[in-house]
Formats: sequence, structure tokens, C-alpha cells
Amino acid sequence: MEMDSTRFLRDSTIAVIGLGVMGGSFAGRLRQIGAHRIIAYDVNEETLAAALADKVIDAGYAKGNAVLAEAALLIFCLPLHDMIEFMKVNRSFFRPGQIATDIIGIKGGSAEEVEAVLPEYVDYVPGHPMAGREGCGYEMADAAVFEGANYIIVPSKRSGQESIRLIKSLAKALGCGHVSIVTAAEHDRRIAYTSCLPHVLATTLVNSASMNDEMKCFIAGSFRDGTRVADINAPLWTKLLLSDRKSLLTEIEHFRTALSEMENALQNKDEARLYAFLSEAAKRRRRLIHADRNG
Amino acid sequence: MEMDSTRFLRDSTIAVIGLGVMGGSFAGRLRQIGAHRIIAYDVNEETLAAALADKVIDAGYAKGNAVLAEAALLIFCLPLHDMIEFMKVNRSFFRPGQIATDIIGIKGGSAEEVEAVLPEYVDYVPGHPMAGREGCGYEMADAAVFEGANYIIVPSKRSGQESIRLIKSLAKALGCGHVSIVTAAEHDRRIAYTSCLPHVLATTLVNSASMNDEMKCFIAGSFRDGTRVADINAPLWTKLLLSDRKSLLTEIEHFRTALSEMENALQNKDEARLYAFLSEAAKRRRRLIHADRNG
Repeated sequence: MEMDSTRFLRDSTIAVIGLGVMGGSFAGRLRQIGAHRIIAYDVNEETLAAALADKVIDAGYAKGNAVLAEAALLIFCLPLHDMIEFMKVNRSFFRPGQIATDIIGIKGGSAEEVEAVLPEYVDYVPGHPMAGREGCGYEMADAAVFEGANYIIVPSKRSGQESIRLIKSLAKALGCGHVSIVTAAEHDRRIAYTSCLPHVLATTLVNSASMNDEMKCFIAGSFRDGTRVADINAPLWTKLLLSDRKSLLTEIEHFRTALSEMENALQNKDEARLYAFLSEAAKRRRRLIHADRNG
Repeated sequence: MEMDSTRFLRDSTIAVIGLGVMGGSFAGRLRQIGAHRIIAYDVNEETLAAALADKVIDAGYAKGNAVLAEAALLIFCLPLHDMIEFMKVNRSFFRPGQIATDIIGIKGGSAEEVEAVLPEYVDYVPGHPMAGREGCGYEMADAAVFEGANYIIVPSKRSGQESIRLIKSLAKALGCGHVSIVTAAEHDRRIAYTSCLPHVLATTLVNSASMNDEMKCFIAGSFRDGTRVADINAPLWTKLLLSDRKSLLTEIEHFRTALSEMENALQNKDEARLYAFLSEAAKRRRRLIHADRNG
């Protein structure tokens, strides 16, 4: 039986550490699903004030000790480096029985780094809600991002079964469509294709030598959609893309191979091959979205 | 002064030739903005019946003579080959003073082909609403696609000034944000980058060797958006991509060059270069969308 998050939401205090676009989205959605008490930590007092004004948090703290004094669950929505720093600085304020989770996008090695600084009496469940969006900062937060989203849990040596069940139940309560539990290696390999590569393609498309301001009058939905995530959090993604660059380079190679098929068909005016390529893509995309909705 | 479409919409009969996704969208939007009488031609009687039931057309015909007998403006929403066939078969039913426009996505050579079969007493204004969407068929039509969209007019030898002004005014009345008037060569060169290339990237991404059914649990918005147009009308796009394959191959080459920059940065663990690449992309994307909204 899964640990149900209903009672937890009703009785416990949840802390969001870092009120950026994802932290703000978590807080907003937790409020909507009736969380009893939501508190937050952020270095920016204006962000805390904005979240308080929006009533998505009940208290905001710019110091770690205050937030650690009362939270049962800590949702870290910080880049890895800042998360580690927070844990080092506030190490002595963690309390036994607390559960920590995160949203770090690349999992290989990160759990080990976290566990080196997190007190051993804190349960740690690495997570990855596939619910990001363009832009960054609290003002870009959107409680709706969890609706139907995939959520990935990547248990570490320090993930208790009860805590894993709580995070899984909570993801479902947030509205997520599917929760997977996989190893860090499998997570990273898959994410290199499903997330890192699309970000690479979007940023590369807009960085083409063909781009200029006059193009604004010639774009349509395909270009808008294809470049949406090009409005990227550059410091965060620089670290993410580098942290599993080997998987990503493999994915870029696979992409180049598929692109060559398309190019060869164009070069040879091979209508049948081009048609087969496009038909296969349409079939795969329809199956994906169909499966996605029912999965 | 621009010829105002208001009076035209109030007094004249507009025919949509081909009630697919774009024809259906035109009819639906024309109805919303108060067009006096909308008629349609389609080979599929069920489609005509559906549009009649939706009240987006006032009459539907499966024969060209009927639609040509009463329309003042003909909006061709057919692939080039079918448009040419319609004109050949129904050549004797066109009437002097009629205006024809189209939505052919690649303009080089198409106007000449059309003008070879269209009676010379019909004005012809080649157009390209940048308002497509995924999928095909009347059931995918959406009157909202014109909202804020770019609209491109590519005058030919047979485009009267009055007719160009009418189409421009009509595009604005449909809700389009910006109407450009350019040559066929300029249109095709720009479209190769802003539309053909994004379709190539979307279909290639989903056709990568990495794709499989299990990936459905690991995708997020970046993959969904990056592959949205991969659900492509394969017969139509096979012809479109081949019809200006040289421009498209140039765009693919530009893309590969930009992709190499990203790869080199990853291979060399060059954090500064990767950060510069991502920052530039974010800046370009923000400027594009800002310009787009105010353009």
C-alpha cells in the first residue's frame, strides 16, 4: 500500500527551498490541493513578500534555521551547487525524521554529493518533475505545470521506502500523470534524449546564422514552438548539459544520423524516402501523445 | 488608402475551395467576423455536411461550377496539384472580376503554374497565412489560428493593386498581426528557415534511434513542443520540402554549423562557450517574441 499524501498534506508543514519558477509552481500547486501549511526559504526577500502576498506560502524565511525548525518535508528547488551550500551552512539545523526531495535535472553523482553533506538522520528522495517551463524566477511560476506531467523518482541509498511512497503519492496529488522509479543512470540516459536534446535543438535553431530581426514577420507556430525553451536559464542549463555531456553527445550523434537521412532524401529528390520519413514521424508522434495521455 | 474588407465581407460571397484544416479555419473565422455569405467546395460530402451543421458555411458544393457561379473571392486551400486540377477542370466556369488567392507554402514557380491554367480575367493574389497547425482535415480546423499570426502576400504578374489591398485588409480583419508583401524568392528563402527547418527538426527528433515507446514516461514540455509539428501531413510536406529543397539544404547546413558550436563546447567542457551560446539563444528568443508581439 502506498503511503497516502492526504493526511500528510493535512497535518504537516512543507517547506519549499528556493522560490524560483519551479519552487513557486510547487508552492502554488500545494496551496491549490489544500496543503495545511507551506513555508519557503529564498535569499530574495522581495520574492518571499510576493509569494506571501499571493497567499501561496504561509511564511517566508531568508534564513535556513527558521525553515528547518518546522518543516517535515523539504522540497529543494535550487541548482545543485546552491542546494549543497544550503545543506553545509545549515547542517546543524536539520532534524531527525525530516524528508528531503529535490528536482535536480541530472542525477548521476548528485545524490552522492548531497549525501556527503546532509545529516544521515534525514531521508532523501531524489526527484525530477518533468514539469519545467521557459524562463526563470518566481514571476514565471505556474501551478498548472504538474497537470498530467511525468514525475521521476531516483531512489538513493538514503531513500526510505516510506519516504519514496510519500513522494510518489504527493506527485499524484499534484496532478502528475505518471510516476516512474528508475536508477540514476537510466534517468540520465533517457533525459539526455527527452529533455537535453530538445533544449539543444531549440537554442541551436535560434542561434543559426539565418536568424535576424526581420524574421519576426515570417514565423509561425512551428518556429514559436520549436524555440520556446530557447528562452533558457543559461547558468542552470550550462551546468546541466555539462554534467552528463557524454549521453548528450551520443544523442546529438543520433540526431545527426537521422538528419542525414532527411538530407539524403532531399539531395536525391527521393520523394518516396522523404514521404516514408515524414509518415514515420507522424505515426511516432501520434502514438507518443496517445500513449502519453493514457499512460 | 487600403481597400477596406468591411464592405466586401458585408456584401460579397466568399468561397473556400477545400475544407481541410486551413479551409475550415478560414471559414470558421470568416463566420466569426461577420462574413455575409460563405460557401465551400470539397470533394468530401461528409466534410461539407459537417461544416453546414457547424454553421460555418451557408452552402457546400462538391462541384466547381456551382461554387464559381456565385463567389466574388475564392480562397484556395488545396495543395498546389489539386488547385491546378480544379482550375483546369472548371476553367470555363470562372467569371470576370473574380479574385483568387491561395495558401501555397512555397511560392517559387507556383504562381506561373497557376496562371497557365487560370483564365486571365481572374485576378490572382498568392498568399501565405503563417497560421498552420498540426494534423490535417476539417475536424482539426480552428478559427483562432489567425489571431496575431503573420500573413505573407506574394504578388504575381496577375495581382491587381485593388485585389492585393483587399487580401491585406482581409488578413487584418481575420486578426493577423502583420502582413508582409514580398517576392516569391524572398518568401521561399525566409520560409525555409522559419517553417521548413522547424518541421525538419521536429520530425528528425522523433525519428531518432533513441525514440521508443518507453520514452513516454520521460518527456516534458520541451519534447512535446519540439515535436508538435512532427504530426505532419506527410503527402503535403513531402511536396513542400522538395519544392525548394536547395534553400532547405542551406538551412540544414546553417543548423549543423550552429550545432557544431554546441558540440565543441560540450566535447571540450568549455563552460564559458556553452554559457555564451545559451545566453545568446535566450536573448534572441526573448527579442523575437517581444518584437513579434509588437510587430
